[in-house]
Amino acid sequence: MDILSIDSLTDDEIAVILDEGARYFSENRSGSKSKTRLAGKIAVNLFYENSTRTLMSFAIASHRLGANLVTLPVDQSSVKKGETLEDTARTLNAMHPDLLVIRHQKNGAPKIVADLLGCPVINAGDGTNEHPTQALLDAATMRHHFGKVDGLKVAICGDIRHSRVARSNAALLPRLGAEVRLAGPPSLAPDDTPLRPIEEAIEGADVVMMLRVQRERLEEDFGDAPGEYLARYGLTAKRLQRAAPHAVVLHPGPINRGVEIADDVADDQSRSLITLQVEMGVAVRMACLDLVAGADA
Amino acid sequence: MDILSIDSLTDDEIAVILDEGARYFSENRSGSKSKTRLAGKIAVNLFYENSTRTLMSFAIASHRLGANLVTLPVDQSSVKKGETLEDTARTLNAMHPDLLVIRHQKNGAPKIVADLLGCPVINAGDGTNEHPTQALLDAATMRHHFGKVDGLKVAICGDIRHSRVARSNAALLPRLGAEVRLAGPPSLAPDDTPLRPIEEAIEGADVVMMLRVQRERLEEDFGDAPGEYLARYGLTAKRLQRAAPHAVVLHPGPINRGVEIADDVADDQSRSLITLQVEMGVAVRMACLDLVAGADA
Amino acid sequence: MDILSIDSLTDDEIAVILDEGARYFSENRSGSKSKTRLAGKIAVNLFYENSTRTLMSFAIASHRLGANLVTLPVDQSSVKKGETLEDTARTLNAMHPDLLVIRHQKNGAPKIVADLLGCPVINAGDGTNEHPTQALLDAATMRHHFGKVDGLKVAICGDIRHSRVARSNAALLPRLGAEVRLAGPPSLAPDDTPLRPIEEAIEGADVVMMLRVQRERLEEDFGDAPGEYLARYGLTAKRLQRAAPHAVVLHPGPINRGVEIADDVADDQSRSLITLQVEMGVAVRMACLDLVAGADA
Repeated sequence: MDILSIDSLTDDEIAVILDEGARYFSENRSGSKSKTRLAGKIAVNLFYENSTRTLMSFAIASHRLGANLVTLPVDQSSVKKGETLEDTARTLNAMHPDLLVIRHQKNGAPKIVADLLGCPVINAGDGTNEHPTQALLDAATMRHHFGKVDGLKVAICGDIRHSRVARSNAALLPRLGAEVRLAGPPSLAPDDTPLRPIEEAIEGADVVMMLRVQRERLEEDFGDAPGEYLARYGLTAKRLQRAAPHAVVLHPGPINRGVEIADDVADDQSRSLITLQVEMGVAVRMACLDLVAGADA
Repeated sequence: MDILSIDSLTDDEIAVILDEGARYFSENRSGSKSKTRLAGKIAVNLFYENSTRTLMSFAIASHRLGANLVTLPVDQSSVKKGETLEDTARTLNAMHPDLLVIRHQKNGAPKIVADLLGCPVINAGDGTNEHPTQALLDAATMRHHFGKVDGLKVAICGDIRHSRVARSNAALLPRLGAEVRLAGPPSLAPDDTPLRPIEEAIEGADVVMMLRVQRERLEEDFGDAPGEYLARYGLTAKRLQRAAPHAVVLHPGPINRGVEIADDVADDQSRSLITLQVEMGVAVRMACLDLVAGADA
Repeated sequence: MDILSIDSLTDDEIAVILDEGARYFSENRSGSKSKTRLAGKIAVNLFYENSTRTLMSFAIASHRLGANLVTLPVDQSSVKKGETLEDTARTLNAMHPDLLVIRHQKNGAPKIVADLLGCPVINAGDGTNEHPTQALLDAATMRHHFGKVDGLKVAICGDIRHSRVARSNAALLPRLGAEVRLAGPPSLAPDDTPLRPIEEAIEGADVVMMLRVQRERLEEDFGDAPGEYLARYGLTAKRLQRAAPHAVVLHPGPINRGVEIADDVADDQSRSLITLQVEMGVAVRMACLDLVAGADA
């Protein structure tokens, strides 16, 4: 099986990923050594977009399960020689990898690749489409903190239009019983979804998930005056006061300090779950890798 | 022992590589897990030229044999600091790798490195000189398809002058009893070898091996008019009709669709062995790695 | 424990590293296979500066101890996205690596990272500050050759001002009983340390350690006339005659032939320990990795 989008997963599969993710989370924290669930298997990381945390997260998750990991050097890749994605996929398939993790700037690229590959494919982010493992780790983080996702009010704020993180969360969280409120600058609204003002979305929220603003978008749409975006659309301590008293803050990272999130909010250990998300990320990705390619997959 | 050129291999060694390659091919296809023939050994991939498929192919072959693989980041390498190849080789040698795979833009670089290294060296392509494992996998692919290489008529078409693939095949295939016909634009003929017109070379051929045309060469020598190279020197379905009825098509990849090969030829599953070459590539490289550095090497 | 600077190590720890390094040196030379001291552990190589030999050296040392190695691709890293070093460290920490090796252009960066990480951190070179494993391998090389470090006269020559290698050696060698003499162009003296003329420093020395001159510094301060730096400040055979008859030559590499060191000196096998340093480098780094993260660390 592949993990290409949230919709491609059944409720049962989501439950398995969240449960197994929680188990791996505890084991990783207790310092347990690598497992053998993927021992002797070849995992390929094919990243067409720059990434530190997602690439590292999948790399460590793969190693923790005992896989042999091959990272495809995209800067050196045949992309520059003009090979089509389909031909690259056929080439990879002929090498019989046991698992492929792909990040690509083009919406739908993981699906194209998955259709041509005999092994499981996991989407690690495609264009402005989906980033399903991010949404899964976000849900796992909420569940770890609140004990449940059902009934949570989740405000997702920022560049909703271009955010695959928002799109995957908007698909996943309601299936788990959460209420999702999308907020952000009107110019960054998706075609089909009006955005709420951030104050309204945050009002009484249990979770405030801030999205990263791309610097190039910042300059184009909002100028680059220090603090301007933060003042209008970012998460300040004052704005956060509108949320529920126990509200927590999420961010897929890397954060732009002083842009979409104020320093004191990012660093408030009683509120910020940002590093917990990273920790849960490795665990949830181990669960995903295990589900699609583990010893009994 | 090293694998630096076809001439450096005895007939017996070639036979072992082809036989073991065929065995690994079957095992890989049946989904067997990684082996331990190189367990506990350090394999170094030193690629001075961009590559996806060859680098991936050697990486996966190394992992499948259980090696610990270190890929030297060439963009970050001391090359930029002006270190000589000889000094880099002495440095590498002092680290006691068990195996080195090298690709280099300079003819003869693998030989220079091999002379200074105490471990086996495999040439993964040097300048316009040789690419011996490509020729070995090409021969293995032909043998897999036809059951033999002896007696086959093989047309190799394209930029023969600059092609290490052509050079290695021209050295290997006749030793296995095949007849090699070199074809291509007159301006891309080697100094010592006249090229035939492509129609003549293809006439009655069992195998048509198309070479990749470098884009820079295309613009310089043939203009960049769409379809011009294809029409004059590429493999179209019409031109392929001159070959034997059972003729197959090979290409070392990545292919330039619509340049040296027409889409319908590349995608004709009854004719094109291009992905089979990739699959055989991992297997034959496993055989090469095993031969030079395996448990009983 | 971390290895951030020479001063951070006790005399006992230094002794363990030198002893274990010597043991691994012998084992590596005898062709022994990889160990399991770091089996099942995740080692991360985080290199913000280009490097071939140090990155390779740590990579091979990690593999020889059986670690699972993840190399962070700095060119693709969040650095470009403006993430602070502290946030990167928190992110890495949340992934629970068992060991981190860091090279960074900023003095003190490894300390910042170590303070935020729950796992051992080894400094693989930070700005113009320290490069402790280089000094340790230099001392191990001297001890291998002379049977001791105590009492040796060591001339360190070159760009002392910017050299982390010189700084770490100047901290380590006197603790082992050696006399260190710093020499180089007056303009490249540290603020607090006058440099001797190279002839004076070499006089009667047992060890002459030449430092690499950065090309950009060469052009700025000394012009780029061929041989000018060598004639004034480099190590020529003639100049080396001032040293003790049994004197040996060290260099952290990669060497600039004809700049800080003459070809005949670099290649004099009876004098040059440069490749021995590389060989000892892997062994000493194995000892360091084992000390901070080994099975009983």
